Amino acid sequence: MKIGIEKGILEFNDALAEENRALFSAHGVFVVDLMASPGAGKTSTILATIAALRDRYRIAVIEGDIASKVDAEKVKAHGIPAVQINTGGACHLESRMIRRAVEAIDLDEVDLLIIENVGNLVCPTDFDLGEHAKVMILSVPEGHDKPYKYPDIFRVSEAVILNKYDTMSVFDFDEADFRRVVTSLNPQAPVFPMSATSGAGVEAWAEWLAARIEAVRGETS
Amino acid sequence: MKIGIEKGILEFNDALAEENRALFSAHGVFVVDLMASPGAGKTSTILATIAALRDRYRIAVIEGDIASKVDAEKVKAHGIPAVQINTGGACHLESRMIRRAVEAIDLDEVDLLIIENVGNLVCPTDFDLGEHAKVMILSVPEGHDKPYKYPDIFRVSEAVILNKYDTMSVFDFDEADFRRVVTSLNPQAPVFPMSATSGAGVEAWAEWLAARIEAVRGETS
Repeated sequence: MKIGIEKGILEFNDALAEENRALFSAHGVFVVDLMASPGAGKTSTILATIAALRDRYRIAVIEGDIASKVDAEKVKAHGIPAVQINTGGACHLESRMIRRAVEAIDLDEVDLLIIENVGNLVCPTDFDLGEHAKVMILSVPEGHDKPYKYPDIFRVSEAVILNKYDTMSVFDFDEADFRRVVTSLNPQAPVFPMSATSGAGVEAWAEWLAARIEAVRGETS
Repeated sequence: MKIGIEKGILEFNDALAEENRALFSAHGVFVVDLMASPGAGKTSTILATIAALRDRYRIAVIEGDIASKVDAEKVKAHGIPAVQINTGGACHLESRMIRRAVEAIDLDEVDLLIIENVGNLVCPTDFDLGEHAKVMILSVPEGHDKPYKYPDIFRVSEAVILNKYDTMSVFDFDEADFRRVVTSLNPQAPVFPMSATSGAGVEAWAEWLAARIEAVRGETS
């Protein structure tokens, strides 16, 4: 929540986030912070991204959840290193949690680090983790009116994945209205229609990500 | 978020919540706080509840959102008094916001007051608004694993609505596992499978609510 976040907490968070980002860049690791509602398909999107890019890049994952280690186990089952953070109640990750999780990852062996934030369209918006890009997923069943109600997360995201796109016919989702409002909030952000479970549409998102990974590697070498 | 909620904020909130509850009970108004993820169908559930109960009870609605007044307008279009609260960034409602919103409602003309909290499975859990019952909605597209990841909201809810139940065939939702985990977290809470948009399953939920409304009216008279 914004009410109750003291200035000191955010300043402490942001200072440590800058240190995280410098650490990641020094190792040529591109870091993406994936944000979405509960059940929008964050973990499925991560698995689809791994399938699309694992032959070209070395990938690691940090999973953030209030409780449970279900998600890290799903990722590890695909042979990808994954660290689970349990926030124990907090509705978002913070840079200090990332700092601690990264200690369990050999950054010299990673090109792409994907952070799955806690399922929430509000709190993660305010917290810089040291990522290079925040990306959000909206799933079709959530409805096209979400940018009206949660404008901040659309503003801070560098790309928007529109997941469960294959269920469009089941739900009353006005894609034209959705795209119009997203563009008004964030003219630069591309929208990637996708079905993470079937793999449809994953390629365009993966290529966008690959271009960002190459940019960070270019800076390092 | 839990980190950053100072004890003073919660104590202040809870004290005012008790005053709200006393005020509602004195007027014989039953108050339910409806919590869910963004897009789980809170507003649709409210509209379905209005359709089911409007002939028996006088209903009013308080809509909570970060931004926009879309939801209050939808409710008003059905001839039901509705007050919109915009939290301006906060991820949950607080008792002081309800106090202010209630000033616009004639409690002597209301039997049931439905509060729609901000779309979030985390933050609303901690804040007593002065309601008589918290109820949560999980929608089938969100997945059956949500009680593992967000146990607190299942613990504090007196009933669980399983919405978009008609899309069960489209999604890989393990209802038996879902019910098992919900029961382990909260043995008393009934689970109501429902499709708020088609109206299927609404009756059982409406009858549960009617029994609670009658209980509060019984105390007053």
